[in-house]
Amino acid sequence: MTNLTVSLDAMGGDFGVEVVAKAAVDYLEEHQDISLILVGNQQEITAELNRLNTKPYERLKIHHASQKVDMDEPPSQALRNKKDSSMRVAIDLVKAGVADAAISAGNTGALMATARYVLKTLPGIDRPAITSTMPSMHGKTYMLDLGANVGCSSQHLLQFAVMGSVLANAIDEIKFPKVGLLNVGEEEIKGNEQVKEAHEVLRQSGLNYIGYVEGDDIFCGEVEVVVCDGFVGNVSLKTSEGVAKIVAHYAREEFSRNILTKLCGLFALPVLKAFKKRIDPRRYNGASLLGLRGVVVKSHGGADAYSFQHAIEIAHVEASQQVPKKIESRIEEFLTQDNAA
Amino acid sequence: MTNLTVSLDAMGGDFGVEVVAKAAVDYLEEHQDISLILVGNQQEITAELNRLNTKPYERLKIHHASQKVDMDEPPSQALRNKKDSSMRVAIDLVKAGVADAAISAGNTGALMATARYVLKTLPGIDRPAITSTMPSMHGKTYMLDLGANVGCSSQHLLQFAVMGSVLANAIDEIKFPKVGLLNVGEEEIKGNEQVKEAHEVLRQSGLNYIGYVEGDDIFCGEVEVVVCDGFVGNVSLKTSEGVAKIVAHYAREEFSRNILTKLCGLFALPVLKAFKKRIDPRRYNGASLLGLRGVVVKSHGGADAYSFQHAIEIAHVEASQQVPKKIESRIEEFLTQDNAA
Repeated sequence: MTNLTVSLDAMGGDFGVEVVAKAAVDYLEEHQDISLILVGNQQEITAELNRLNTKPYERLKIHHASQKVDMDEPPSQALRNKKDSSMRVAIDLVKAGVADAAISAGNTGALMATARYVLKTLPGIDRPAITSTMPSMHGKTYMLDLGANVGCSSQHLLQFAVMGSVLANAIDEIKFPKVGLLNVGEEEIKGNEQVKEAHEVLRQSGLNYIGYVEGDDIFCGEVEVVVCDGFVGNVSLKTSEGVAKIVAHYAREEFSRNILTKLCGLFALPVLKAFKKRIDPRRYNGASLLGLRGVVVKSHGGADAYSFQHAIEIAHVEASQQVPKKIESRIEEFLTQDNAA
Repeated sequence: MTNLTVSLDAMGGDFGVEVVAKAAVDYLEEHQDISLILVGNQQEITAELNRLNTKPYERLKIHHASQKVDMDEPPSQALRNKKDSSMRVAIDLVKAGVADAAISAGNTGALMATARYVLKTLPGIDRPAITSTMPSMHGKTYMLDLGANVGCSSQHLLQFAVMGSVLANAIDEIKFPKVGLLNVGEEEIKGNEQVKEAHEVLRQSGLNYIGYVEGDDIFCGEVEVVVCDGFVGNVSLKTSEGVAKIVAHYAREEFSRNILTKLCGLFALPVLKAFKKRIDPRRYNGASLLGLRGVVVKSHGGADAYSFQHAIEIAHVEASQQVPKKIESRIEEFLTQDNAA
């Protein structure tokens, strides 16, 4: 990777500077080829860095921003009234070419609105999408949209499919990522009109489209990119979080039932720890806002420093792989095809 | 419970009579207050019962049906050409008052179409819904619709909410079940138009409506009845199945990594077994087709005999609790309210 700069909204998320500063310092320690800019209240950031008592990093800068977007602030209001917010300035730095990517754990709606307003969408992209990877038997599955767009046309879904394919290709070096369309059944008679139309569009797209997939295929199927409407994608994402939580809860309950089961747990501890690490949602933190003229990554609002580092890593990799540029050129091919047809 | 009769489509599902006959015999052994009718090819059923070498049960009857609905047969075709199918006859027996409920592990679309055609919907119900329970921190959550209706109006969602409330009330004796509307976020600004409209309708419904819920609330929230469009519900259901499968897969992998981890697994075996039982999807088998003038339960196509018994139990309980009658009278209250308004 070349030496890149990533700007971090240091005030965003449930824990703000406390988490972001720690994540930044830890990340710099592990990665030599990156510079980070902490954007937010200079005084608070400095105090936090002092508290962490870290050695001074040349690769860590502070960029002051006087405002902060609240977690429940309506996006339009944030856009209008918070022009010097840590979130906005972090994205402005990408626009200005000072940073190669921006990350925020703040309000998703405001982040999407701000990123779209400041950076604009790529030519050929109508709407940016939120994407993230889900664990899968074969490794991981890219899923989009996860909530940016509650209603999508077949053309939007096609654009998502192109963006997801570019991402899987750029990040995981999968030559022709298998793309599936999320539906309620694999038979062609099922699904709603929007999905059936998208099915036809995807079939003729030249992408490696494998057809309809169902919710369980995200985790157990052969598919590498799953496209869907943001409403459905968000429900599916949150459902998976819920199931993971209840399974962990059941495991805890079973192992703490009595002295004997606790002893069993003690013996099994190394394996249980490895298992826990494997399903640790913190390892899946970081959702990309795709389709913009720049890399923007959303970290979970409740992320801790370990978790936030995964979001930094995603931004780091996407910027070094020049994902926006790759999406732009791939989408251009589609537009040229359309004009030729 | 009073003595009830349940008709079983003995030829449906991936394993047909082999699973259904065994489940029937096992269920009769455990429950004295029920009679079962195995509907299907008399010769095959008799052969299977002989093979099982069970004592003759007075409470187990065979009802011959000459046809079988294929798993991938279009519903309209099944309806038109399979008037003597095991599925159809099992439902005909409910219509005729011979049976109090019908169960099939066959083709879901055909089952829904046949049940709707033969039994009709209850007055005030536009569309039947498929419902099932999901495990939850507080016990279980009723979720509907799980795939019968890919597009739903706010009135449909209201009807689902009423039916789900009646079910939670009748089965679990919850006086005022907490109803939630599945959405992408809890803030009022989110969601699509259909959901926002349903939110208003539910707010004024007199049900114990707690507002928007997200995918993780199904498992971790306070909500007892979750209503949604069948497309979203089906994706959520299948997602949860996928996550459960991959978590089990990870656990198996971690415990079989090497001789040491296998030893850990051996020590933890009793707890792992209890845990496995807890998340065993077979225990959640059986989805109710609600809103019909009769009890119809769908078993998973791949269900084994243990799993199929859970579907019988659901039919047994719903019939003994006279769920259709309770839904009818509750919906009537709503219709009267509407007329009064």
